Parts: sequence; structure tokens; C-alpha cells
Amino acid sequence: MTDFFQGMAPIAYEGPDSTSPLAFRHYNPDEVVMGKRMEDHLRFAVAYWHSFAWEGGDPFGGQTFERPWHPQDEIGRAKVKADAAFELFDILGQPYFCWHDADIRPEGDSFAASLRNFETIIDYFEEKMSTRKTRLLWGTANMFSHRRWMSGASTNPDPDVFAYSAATVKTCMDATHRLNGENYVLWGGREGYETLLNTDMGRELDHMGRFLNMVVDYKHKIGFKGAILVEPKPQEPSKHQYDYDATTCYGFLQKYGLENEVKLNLEQGHAILAGHSFEHEIAAATALGVLGSIDMNRNDYQSGWDTDQFPNNTPEVALAYYHILKDGGFTSGGTNFDAKLRRQSLDAEDLVAAHVGGMDICARGLKAAAAMLEDGGLDQALAARYAGWDTPEAQAMLQGDLGSIFEQVHTGKVDPKPQSGRQEILENYVNRFV
Amino acid sequence: MTDFFQGMAPIAYEGPDSTSPLAFRHYNPDEVVMGKRMEDHLRFAVAYWHSFAWEGGDPFGGQTFERPWHPQDEIGRAKVKADAAFELFDILGQPYFCWHDADIRPEGDSFAASLRNFETIIDYFEEKMSTRKTRLLWGTANMFSHRRWMSGASTNPDPDVFAYSAATVKTCMDATHRLNGENYVLWGGREGYETLLNTDMGRELDHMGRFLNMVVDYKHKIGFKGAILVEPKPQEPSKHQYDYDATTCYGFLQKYGLENEVKLNLEQGHAILAGHSFEHEIAAATALGVLGSIDMNRNDYQSGWDTDQFPNNTPEVALAYYHILKDGGFTSGGTNFDAKLRRQSLDAEDLVAAHVGGMDICARGLKAAAAMLEDGGLDQALAARYAGWDTPEAQAMLQGDLGSIFEQVHTGKVDPKPQSGRQEILENYVNRFV
Amino acid sequence: MTDFFQGMAPIAYEGPDSTSPLAFRHYNPDEVVMGKRMEDHLRFAVAYWHSFAWEGGDPFGGQTFERPWHPQDEIGRAKVKADAAFELFDILGQPYFCWHDADIRPEGDSFAASLRNFETIIDYFEEKMSTRKTRLLWGTANMFSHRRWMSGASTNPDPDVFAYSAATVKTCMDATHRLNGENYVLWGGREGYETLLNTDMGRELDHMGRFLNMVVDYKHKIGFKGAILVEPKPQEPSKHQYDYDATTCYGFLQKYGLENEVKLNLEQGHAILAGHSFEHEIAAATALGVLGSIDMNRNDYQSGWDTDQFPNNTPEVALAYYHILKDGGFTSGGTNFDAKLRRQSLDAEDLVAAHVGGMDICARGLKAAAAMLEDGGLDQALAARYAGWDTPEAQAMLQGDLGSIFEQVHTGKVDPKPQSGRQEILENYVNRFV
Amino acid sequence: MTDFFQGMAPIAYEGPDSTSPLAFRHYNPDEVVMGKRMEDHLRFAVAYWHSFAWEGGDPFGGQTFERPWHPQDEIGRAKVKADAAFELFDILGQPYFCWHDADIRPEGDSFAASLRNFETIIDYFEEKMSTRKTRLLWGTANMFSHRRWMSGASTNPDPDVFAYSAATVKTCMDATHRLNGENYVLWGGREGYETLLNTDMGRELDHMGRFLNMVVDYKHKIGFKGAILVEPKPQEPSKHQYDYDATTCYGFLQKYGLENEVKLNLEQGHAILAGHSFEHEIAAATALGVLGSIDMNRNDYQSGWDTDQFPNNTPEVALAYYHILKDGGFTSGGTNFDAKLRRQSLDAEDLVAAHVGGMDICARGLKAAAAMLEDGGLDQALAARYAGWDTPEAQAMLQGDLGSIFEQVHTGKVDPKPQSGRQEILENYVNRFV
Repeated sequence: MTDFFQGMAPIAYEGPDSTSPLAFRHYNPDEVVMGKRMEDHLRFAVAYWHSFAWEGGDPFGGQTFERPWHPQDEIGRAKVKADAAFELFDILGQPYFCWHDADIRPEGDSFAASLRNFETIIDYFEEKMSTRKTRLLWGTANMFSHRRWMSGASTNPDPDVFAYSAATVKTCMDATHRLNGENYVLWGGREGYETLLNTDMGRELDHMGRFLNMVVDYKHKIGFKGAILVEPKPQEPSKHQYDYDATTCYGFLQKYGLENEVKLNLEQGHAILAGHSFEHEIAAATALGVLGSIDMNRNDYQSGWDTDQFPNNTPEVALAYYHILKDGGFTSGGTNFDAKLRRQSLDAEDLVAAHVGGMDICARGLKAAAAMLEDGGLDQALAARYAGWDTPEAQAMLQGDLGSIFEQVHTGKVDPKPQSGRQEILENYVNRFV
Repeated sequence: MTDFFQGMAPIAYEGPDSTSPLAFRHYNPDEVVMGKRMEDHLRFAVAYWHSFAWEGGDPFGGQTFERPWHPQDEIGRAKVKADAAFELFDILGQPYFCWHDADIRPEGDSFAASLRNFETIIDYFEEKMSTRKTRLLWGTANMFSHRRWMSGASTNPDPDVFAYSAATVKTCMDATHRLNGENYVLWGGREGYETLLNTDMGRELDHMGRFLNMVVDYKHKIGFKGAILVEPKPQEPSKHQYDYDATTCYGFLQKYGLENEVKLNLEQGHAILAGHSFEHEIAAATALGVLGSIDMNRNDYQSGWDTDQFPNNTPEVALAYYHILKDGGFTSGGTNFDAKLRRQSLDAEDLVAAHVGGMDICARGLKAAAAMLEDGGLDQALAARYAGWDTPEAQAMLQGDLGSIFEQVHTGKVDPKPQSGRQEILENYVNRFV
Repeated sequence: MTDFFQGMAPIAYEGPDSTSPLAFRHYNPDEVVMGKRMEDHLRFAVAYWHSFAWEGGDPFGGQTFERPWHPQDEIGRAKVKADAAFELFDILGQPYFCWHDADIRPEGDSFAASLRNFETIIDYFEEKMSTRKTRLLWGTANMFSHRRWMSGASTNPDPDVFAYSAATVKTCMDATHRLNGENYVLWGGREGYETLLNTDMGRELDHMGRFLNMVVDYKHKIGFKGAILVEPKPQEPSKHQYDYDATTCYGFLQKYGLENEVKLNLEQGHAILAGHSFEHEIAAATALGVLGSIDMNRNDYQSGWDTDQFPNNTPEVALAYYHILKDGGFTSGGTNFDAKLRRQSLDAEDLVAAHVGGMDICARGLKAAAAMLEDGGLDQALAARYAGWDTPEAQAMLQGDLGSIFEQVHTGKVDPKPQSGRQEILENYVNRFV
Repeated sequence: MTDFFQGMAPIAYEGPDSTSPLAFRHYNPDEVVMGKRMEDHLRFAVAYWHSFAWEGGDPFGGQTFERPWHPQDEIGRAKVKADAAFELFDILGQPYFCWHDADIRPEGDSFAASLRNFETIIDYFEEKMSTRKTRLLWGTANMFSHRRWMSGASTNPDPDVFAYSAATVKTCMDATHRLNGENYVLWGGREGYETLLNTDMGRELDHMGRFLNMVVDYKHKIGFKGAILVEPKPQEPSKHQYDYDATTCYGFLQKYGLENEVKLNLEQGHAILAGHSFEHEIAAATALGVLGSIDMNRNDYQSGWDTDQFPNNTPEVALAYYHILKDGGFTSGGTNFDAKLRRQSLDAEDLVAAHVGGMDICARGLKAAAAMLEDGGLDQALAARYAGWDTPEAQAMLQGDLGSIFEQVHTGKVDPKPQSGRQEILENYVNRFV
């Protein structure tokens, strides 16, 4: 074991009354909720990126963390990082993890050299995974940090960057497939623009659509059974990103014939940046049939950038899981924590406690969501509100035309009476469970 | 003539050096810009709603204006309003106007009674239009102000409201057709939700999709040749509106098979509320082939609600028209002013001056946009930036697959070199014209 | 009893497991929390404005409610409204209410006529209060709805409006004093500007400062013992309001010599609009010694305007009360609900349930806050974090100068070691209580 | 000369019709505007930070620029950077520059070592300045980038950091004084909090107040005649910064007795983040008598973080300078460009063009502002609007009391008549000049 976690023991479930800062009070993996183990509902994954690669910098300040594996510029420290990561997985006992290629391997001085580093670490992961239950929720390529991506990956004005992107994604898909990853994710942090003055949006969208088709083709070619997921985010780092939000992505997928091949990986923080609530994004994706997986990290409501914090508000998390459970729960997806410590949270204990607290909030949210679903109050209210549409007359009208409907209304047979929407009563109802 | 405008004369073009508060300094209808009269480029329309129906209230205060035609509760005052409106049209000389049914007629005590009032005013309009060049840019139905629409029009949980909406739109389309309107607009201010707790989003979207198909069918049935336009807005009055922004609408249109039948009416203020710039919305719509028409009223950048003010910033307006001109200019669409006076601007002179100032800003913007297009500097910069894609090799790669591209990259043949995006130089370029 | 509440019985405390939509599950007035009855901690007040005067309109739609006392244009309906209001007070059992003059009386056709109407209702209130325990938390003057206030009250460019404002406030202070009100509030919804182009900010601030001094002088003259409170809000209805937030108000109060005479009435929704959290505004006011009272109505995080909804998120409410309890709790202040139903919530049951739910959330928040204070974990963490400052050396340094401190640092005696801020651990701690 | 600027010649004024990307079209230093040379009005300064120290990173990506002086980890490269900086100053011909200590010197391994590096560069600057007209507008200490400042500088929970801050500021004030700097600036990027849960706001404010008093005392002790300036910013990097905006800073200065000793350095981007327009912040500061200097770098209206871009919108810049000129123009202050290239703008030409474009926009704005002042239209409108206050009766009322004013109003002698605020007419007026 590395020195970093100083022999910390696996986190135990101690129940709601525990006062320990390092115990689960709500997350009890084997507890059965709606006929399924809690672990199998939530499918937690720890993200390599914020939990291990990030050094504590922000736009106005540099590194604050002093991890034994920083900086990540040679393969030895990349292995120490992997050791520490799997130690955290052992401490938390969560079933999954996730990575970008750039999180786990040092950049080499050529594509081939970077790939060798990458494969070395994938080997190292494979070995570690062979003795554990930890699995890979998803892999992805970091095509936004290195200066070569500054003007986009698949949408870059330079076709060489498109090529480099294609090659990079191939290697990441291969690795994900080899590690039995359950999904492959694309987040287009540089697929957008800084200024319209230098951007041909139509051309860039076509390139991005073609690229995503190549990804889907390659998935089928290699027999990867996981889902391909796109991650919406409206902006940051770019001024505007093409994968703005769930409904925009859905329009994009349709335009390029991909709506049955690609699903969405939704993040609370990205929903907030796009002007939505997280439950909105989930509800929109389920209405459109494209919910894939989630990143359960919140943004601060008073900050206009991605703060990627661990979730801490049970009522909000409960509403998110309510829509997920109503949609049937996760299939290939899960609950990733693309979640950052605050840069003042220097200690190993902070890192562990943050994951424990976040997982506990999700467990509380899940249980509240399940209780609401089982109670059925919200479903009953919906059914009552839309009951008028269940009549044959209403269904017939829906197949009619403006002219014939006009006749009904003009004669005075239709004279609608407003009914209360009962929002406050429904909010009170939810508060019985959260 | 009514007393309201007190015999004000038509506004004349006096050139940039005029100091008159009631002269055009830039809008010169007959001036030829890029081979077309300025009037035929801009196609200005005055909106009945904010310019005549609004009484000056806001959420914290009531009526401030004291127009002779307020309140609009009987047909006589509706005619005085029409008289005043056409007097303003004569003063401004703009070619078009626009209305909602509820702007122009008093509500009756039944659907049939409201329709009779509506038809009386349409007759009155027809008579006035017969002696003038003023035309109708678009008509639309107000399905958001009366309490019957509080929970939606086509998305209402009550099918009777759907029916009422269908009948209402039929009458407005009929009237628009009769007045030779060039477009028909739908803005779904209540097509959305206040809370997801009482909302079945999937069902509501299906109803909205079906409704819009009925509208398109009816258009063809009656032989209306104008465009059907949907107006995106993200929120307000609803917490969330389904027609969130241009790309969301495009996804919706595709889902319901309407992307070749319906175009968009874009508004600067709505773009801002959705977190976009206006030129972004226009560029997105042109990239997707769905630009229809615009509402050239701005929002205040520091206010989180729709302020619907007259445009006053030439550089911003110029960028909007640049994308419109690049798309070939308006066909059926035009520049509507869905634009409000400030509620302290009580006088007839304020109303006239606001339109004059807004039209002048648009004219300056148009001329600057045309000059940029004719100079070609931005197009040349784009062409240079994307030139790599014009090679046969790049086009071949675009038809390739991840595996074959990987081979090229892995061997080191592809090693991209970042190029400057030149944003500041392009911004300086634009500032030569605005 | 009016028909409106249809004989609804007083709301009873039934405990957390109650499933009744019209019972308190957490608000138990006589329960003792930290040595004081819950009722005496929370000091709930129902606001006349949103709960009775508002008719359900928004900027895009008119009245949706159909109350027996609407419209409020004659004294008879004003009395029916008062009857219904006191019936609600009897149903809820909350100890206080609040009003603006314009909420309770019809506007007359002169100042004197309006005053007669006002005094009639104050008489009517006095009679009702004589047989009940309901008291007045605060009164205030509505100097923002009528068109005379469109350009400001005390900051109006027209001195006649200043005069009208002074006279109006005098009458409202007199009535508040007569009804034994415990505070007098001023909210300056029109004290600000729509555009700087027509505004002399320095002059307007001086007038507002002078006005507030007159108010304080009058308080002393009539022997009113309650607190004078100013209510910060950054904007809406105005583009910018001078009482932007707590710290801006504090600067204003100092400039005009009022920081020991005037305190603040803070609202969650206004905090959000100003870019702050509610607990921030409370913490800032307590740090500066100017916390007076609160309006416990939330804004929607995705809406850029004042939604004034009933609170529904216990964790947020708990943090607000934590800072209030830490400051010693309310003295003259209390928890007002300046809180609106959603405009689709048409029924009397909605109105009652909304208040019940909001009060319950506050009760839960208060209990959680008290439990945290009694546990002491946050205080201990603070004490540990700042412990270095408690040494004599640190205190001496604080009285020192740059030169002498420099000597200490330059010699290398001072070499700070960063310590974890432990944010996630503290958030987890809070989640044990909420 | 370094290779970086490749022998670029000084930028010449070529007039508005020049099509050169590297010429001034509007900034003509010797042109007289309102009786003063343009250079003496604008007092441009180039900021070391964004123009030389920044390497092109953002939260999602690393360095993109490859300057000969990067990374800044040894004194030799710091001198190359200084050489390049003064070459840019020679090319632009602007009269001033500005720095943070950390921009110009490598961090040493102790305070004393850092100070030695700093003094070496100050010597180097002194030598360069001895042969040029370039002067220092202001110096400042970077107390936000190194990890020691992560929890604040003067507000740090650790008194050792307070000490380190005091010592650091002393050295920066000494250097500023030695270089005849005309101001000394403090920006408190870490003086605030990430979470209230670990923050004692009252204690931190007291420490910050004491610190600023030490700074003022030291200024007097060493005979520095420049102004001490505080720079408001609401947030970023901190969740909340104490120097939120102009009015909050004013309250802080008063509380600690500094309102006559300290002025404000206002930034457009920070104004936007605080929910204000730039002209608002300037107008507020001039109304309160605390305008010091400006940072003329804009934020993007659609991005919720500090983008620090070069100004490019003349109408906005003109309104800012209008309020500055109306206040009498700068005394010790000037127009700093704390302004970043976009990270894709890799080339030396981008850096030069950006400054040229920004200076040109400021020059256009200044000339427009001066023309408006000289024309007098806005002042006349203000005078007319507030004329009622100039009567002896109005002034007497202002010295009166609520009771006596009430008598006047109650008798009906005062009956205000709303007057138009004429916003649109005033906006049109401004558009004659911009």
C-alpha cells in the first residue's frame, strides 16, 4: 500500500446515527431497494480525473495538492497513481471507475510513444482488476487539454487534428473494450467555438456528425457491446459547445442518423450551466429515449463555471433518481463522480470523506425516490391531471384536423375550465420523502 | 387622424448629420445595398403587441400609459387603436406590421363572440390596407394571456384546451391568409412547465408535435403560401419552454417530421435568455437551414427577464445581419419589432422616436454587414482557416474509418501544428465597419 | 366565515409520519428548541400581498385566481378580503401578519380619500385583532405599483413625489404604531434606475438618505419602539436598485449616519437575484450587526426574476436559520412569507397547503440548525481553524505595521504551511442534521 | 531586440480609413480632446500579467503559447520577458505599464530569495525606464496564485499568512515607490470564501480592514504620493470575494475609516460578473467620490467567468469614458489593459493587434464621450428632469419632516403628474455620437 492513505480501512455502513466522519450512514450496498441491491441501482464509479489527476489549480492559482504521483510526467509516477487509485477503490468499495487516457498515462513525445505509455497502464489496470471486483464504467479520450486540441478535435479546421482525434479514440475504445468497459463516452470540450468570426458552424457540425458515425461503426466492427455516450455541456472551456444540452444533442443525433445508436451522459453541473435543473435534463432524455448514464457532480448555483463538486443536497438528488428509476433505472450506465475536491481540501481524508459523503447523499436520494415511486403519489397525480386525454374522444381529436376541431369549438361545445396545477401540494408531498 | 400623434408628419431621411430627434439618419428605404433596396432587405414590421396593446405594467406595477384606446374591452376602442396604429405606420413608412388576435380585438364572452370581434377588425384592417402599401408580415394567436391557457395550449393536460387552441389557430391562419400575410408564427409561451412534478413531458411533446402537423396540413389545405414559423424562447412566462432555442427546436421538428416544413422566428432577447448571442442563434439556424424571420428586440444583459427593448447597439446588430445576408437574406421573413417602450416613456413622441432609432440602428447594421460581405475579409479568413479540408486527401479521410486513420497517425505521418485563430485581428477587422 | 375556505379547520400538528396534506408534520408551536418555543423562534407572518392581493397575473398573462374579494376597487371587497385573511390566520395559527397599505385598502381618488379607506381597514383590523392573538410583524407602504411612483419614490426627479412618499410613509408608520407593529419596513422597488442616461445617482442617493433620516426621526417623535428595516433587492422592477444587497445597504446606512438606527429585512429570493446565497446575506448582515428580519421565500435557481415561492428545501433553510440562531435569534424580526402561489394553483386548498408546507420546512430547518449549534461541530471547526489568531503574538502583530512584520518574515521566521479547509467534511457534517 | 517581435516597427496613426491590421485608426496620442492630449486622457498601461506571464492555459487545458521566456522559473528568462515587454511598449508607444511581483520575477525558495529576484528585475526595469518615457501606472502583489494564499492573504485563518502578506505588500509598495509608480493596487482574489461553513466573516473583515490601514500608514511613512486602490470583483477564484463591487467596497472603506484614503480600480469584466454594467460601477464610484483607475477589459456576456478580453464595443466604451470625463477625468489613474489574448491567438502579431485594436476602441469611445459632453445634450436632459429640485420650496422640504410634509399632501396641494423618462430618445441621442 502507498503511504498516501496511511492504512485507512474500508468504509463500513454504520447506519444513520453514526457520527463517524468516515462511515456510510446511508449507502448500504446490499440493501434491497425496489427489488434490487443498492449497489446495482447506483452503480457508482470513481473518476480518475478530478480524484487523482487534478493538482488543485484554478485560473488564478497553481497546484495546491502535493500527491506522491504529481507531476504526471513519467510512467513510474503513473503507476504510483494507479496504486493509490485502486487503494481508494478498495477503501470505498464502489463497483466502477472511469478514466480519460490523459489521466492515466504520461504524454509521450509522439503518438506512438503516448500509446505505449497508455498500454502499459492498461496492462497494469488489467492486472489489478483481475484480483478485484472493480470494473470499468467507461473510458474516454481527453481531446481538450493538450494544445493540439485548442481549436477542436473532430471539428478542428485542420484535418490533421481530425485524424489525430480519430486515432486517439480508436485506442481508447480498444482499451475500454479490452477492460470490459460498459460504455464509451465522448465529451466535446473543444467541439464548439471561441468566436463565430472564425468558425464555419455547418462544416464543423458535419465533421462532428461524420466522426461520431465512425465511432459507432468502429464499435460494431470490434464487437464492443457497451453504449456510446455523448456528454452535453453548453460552454467552458469553449464559449459555445455544440453538445449544448440534452435536446440539442438529440437534434444533432437525429440529423446524423444516430438517435438509435448513441445515448447521453448527463451531468448535474452541466445542466446548471445550460440553464436547466438536473432533473430537467434527465426527464428530457428519458422522454426522448436517450438517457445513458450520469455524472453526479453539482455546480455551485452562484458560480458561473464548472465547480464539479460532490453532491450534497438530498432533495435535489432524490428528484434526479426519481426520473431515472421511473425510466427503469440504469442499464449500461451508472453514477459517475466526475467530482472535484475543493482546492483547499489537501488531505487524503478529505478525498475519502468527499466520496463517502457524496455516495451517502446519492443513497438517501435513491431511497427517497424509490419510496415516492412505491407510494405512487406523483404518478397518481399525473394520471389524474391528464385523464381527459385517455378518452376515445380526445384520442380521436388528436387524429383530426384544425377544421373539424374548429367546428366543435365554434358551436360552444368546448369551453375549458382551468384546474389547479397543485404545485405546492406536490412539493409538500415530495418533502414527506426527502 | 386621432389626436394621439397630433398631426406628426412622416419621418424623412435626413442623413447621418441630422440632429433632429425625429428623422432617419441611416434608414433610407430606396438606397441600394448589395443590389437591393434597403427596405427590401430589412422588411421592417411594427408589432401591435408592445407598441399598442401593452399598457405599461410590470410585475410590480400597473398601467402607466394612458392611451385613448385603453382598456381594450370593446370594439370601438379596438378601432381607435387600429386608427392610431395605421397612423404610426404612415408616419414611419415601414412596409409591414404583425399582430396576435388578442392584440387587435376585445375578448368576447364565447369563442364565437371573440371571433366576431376578430373578424370585424380584420375587415377594418383590410379596408385600411387597401389604400396603403402596408402589408402583413405575420399573424399569430395569443395562446398565453387568458387564464384558459395557464397550463399550456396544445400541451395542456385538458384536451378541451387543445381543441380551443386548434380552433383559435385556424381562425388566425384564415385571417393571415386573407390579409396576404407572408408568414404565420407560433410562440409557445405556455408550452412548457412550471414544475416537472405535475408534467408528463413526453406526452406533451407528442401533443405539440401533432398540433404543429395539423397546422402544416391546414396551411396546405387552404393554399397559404407563407412560411410557418416557430419562435424559440427558453423560459418566461413558463419556467421551461419546449421551444428552448434554435437547436432544440430543430431536434423537435425532426422528431415530428417537420424540418422541411417549419422554420424559425428568432429574437435577440430570447437568444440572450437562452445563454446565447443573437448571431449564434442566427448562425445555428442558417447552418441547419431553418432561418425564417427575426424579432429585432434586445434584452438587457443585466436583467434576467424579457425586456424587449428597441435595439441600440450597432456592432451587435451588424453581426446579426451579417449572418442573415450570408444566408442570402430574408425570403418570406423580415425584421419585426416585438419591442417595448420603457414604462416611463409615456409620450407619443417616445413611441415614434423609439421606432425611428431602432430602424436606424438596423440600417447602420445592415450597411456595415453588407460592407463586410463585399469586402470579403471574413470569408477569406474562413477559407484560409479551413483550406486543409479542401484537399482530396482530407475529403477521402472523411469517408474513411477509425482503423485506417489510426494507421496514418500511428506511423507519425500526421503531426498537427496549432495555428493561431486570430480572433482579435478579426474583431479589429469588424470594427473597421461598425 | 366566508365561503372561500369552506369551513376548513385549524391545522394541527400530527408529527412526521402524517400523510395528511393539511397537517403540520414538523411545526409544533409549543415544542421547545434551545430553550424557547418554536413559535417564538420562528415568529411566522403571513403576507397580505402575495397571499391575498395578487390575482395570478404575470408579464404574459392576466388574472387566473377568482377570489370573492377581487378586484380590490371598493371598501366592501377590501373587508371581505380582510375577513378571508383572518380566517387563514385562524386556520394556520401563525402569530403575525404583514401588509402594504395598497394591499389592504382601495386606492381613492385623492391622497385624503385613500387615507380614509386605509383608516377604515386599520379600524377593521384593530377590531379583529382585539379578539385574537394575531399581531402585526410589520407594515410598509407600497410606493412602486401606482404610476405616480414609476420614476421612484424618495428618489423621484419630481419633488412632489418625494412629498407624496413622505406623507404616505407617515400614514403607514402611524398605522403600524397603532396596531403595535414590531417593525416598519421600506422596500425601494423603484428607488433605482432604468437607465443611467436620465439619472443623477449622487443626487438620488442623497435624497434617499435624507428620506430615511426623516423616517427615523419620525419613529422617535411618535415613540414607535419597533425597528426600521430596509429590504435589499438588486433589481426588478428597476434595472438597478440602490438597496442592492446587504453590504451595499450597509455602506448606504453609514454614509447617511444610520447604521445604528436601521436594520435589514433579508429575502432569499433577493439574495439569489444579487448573486448570493441566502445564508451569505444573513452572515454578512450579522457580521455587520444589521440583521433585522427575513422574508422566507425562495427564487427558482433557473429563473432570472423574482418567483417568490414558498421554501421547499430543508438543507438550504437550515443554513439560513443556523446563522440567525448563532446571532442570537430574532429580536423584533421574524419569518415573513412574502410568498406567492404559482398562478396555476387556483384553489383555497393550494393556498393553505403552501403555507403549511413552507412553515413545516422552516420548522425542520430550525430544528436542524439548533441541533448543529447544540452539537457544536461547526463552531469547534471554526475555533480550530482560527486558533492561531488567539495567541498574543498574532494579536500583537495585528497592531503592528508593515515594516516590523516584514522583518519577521524576511528573516525566515515565518513560513506558512497550508492547512486543509475541510469543506467536504463540514458539508458531510451538516448532512447528518438535515 | 528579441526575435519575438521580429523587428516590428512602432505603430503609427493612419486615420480611420486605414486598412492596415497594425495601425492606429483612432488613437492619435497628440490629438487634443477637450483641451487635453488624447494620451493624457487615456493614460494607457499594458499589463505584464496577461500580456506576458500567462501561458495560454484554462481550466481544461494547458499552455498553448510558446514564448521564449516561458516557463518563468529562472532569472534569465525573466529578463528576456522584460526585454520583450519593453519592446512591445516601444511598438505601442503607450505611456504606462503595470505588474504583479509574481509576473516579473521567478519565485525563490524563500521569501528572501524571491525578494532578491524581484529586486534584480526592478533594477532591470529602472535601467530600461531611464532611457524611455514609459512609466509605471501601478504595481501590485500577487497574493492569490501560490498555494500559500489558497485560504486568503490578509484574511487567512493562519496569522503567518497575514504576516507573509504584509511583508510582501511592503516590498511591492517599496518597488512601486522607487519606480515612481502613480498608484498602488490591491486585488483580493482570495480575500473571501469557498464555503461559509469554515469561515468567520466578521473576523476576516476586521483583519482585512486592519491590513488596509497598515498599507495606508506605510504609504504615508515612505512618502508615496500615489493613490492606494482596491479592485472590486465579486467572485472567481473565490466563491465570494469581500470586495464584491463598488458600493460594497465603499461600505467596507467607511467601516474601517478609509473612505478618504483609498479609491477603486474598476474593471469592466468584474462589473459584469457582479451583475452590473461597467458604466454603473463608474457612475457609482464617482457618486461616492472613490473613482481611481480602470481596467478596460471586457467579459463575454455569455460566459460566467472572467474572460478578460480586449474591449471591442465602442458604444459601451463610450459610456464608460463619459462618466469618467464627467467626473473630471483621471488624476492618478489610467486605462490599464488587464487583458488576455484568446488562447488560440498564438502569434506575436495577435498580441500587438489586440492592444492596437483595444486602444483604438478606447480612443473612439473617448472621442464620442467628449463630443457628447461638449454637445451637452445629456446634461441638459438631466437638468430639465431634476429642475423641480432646484426651487427653494423643494430644498426647504428636504430639510423638513414627515409630519409637515404630510400636511401639504393631505390638503391636496401636492398631486404629482408623471413625466416621460425619455429613455429611447436619450439612447438615440447617444447613437448620434458612437
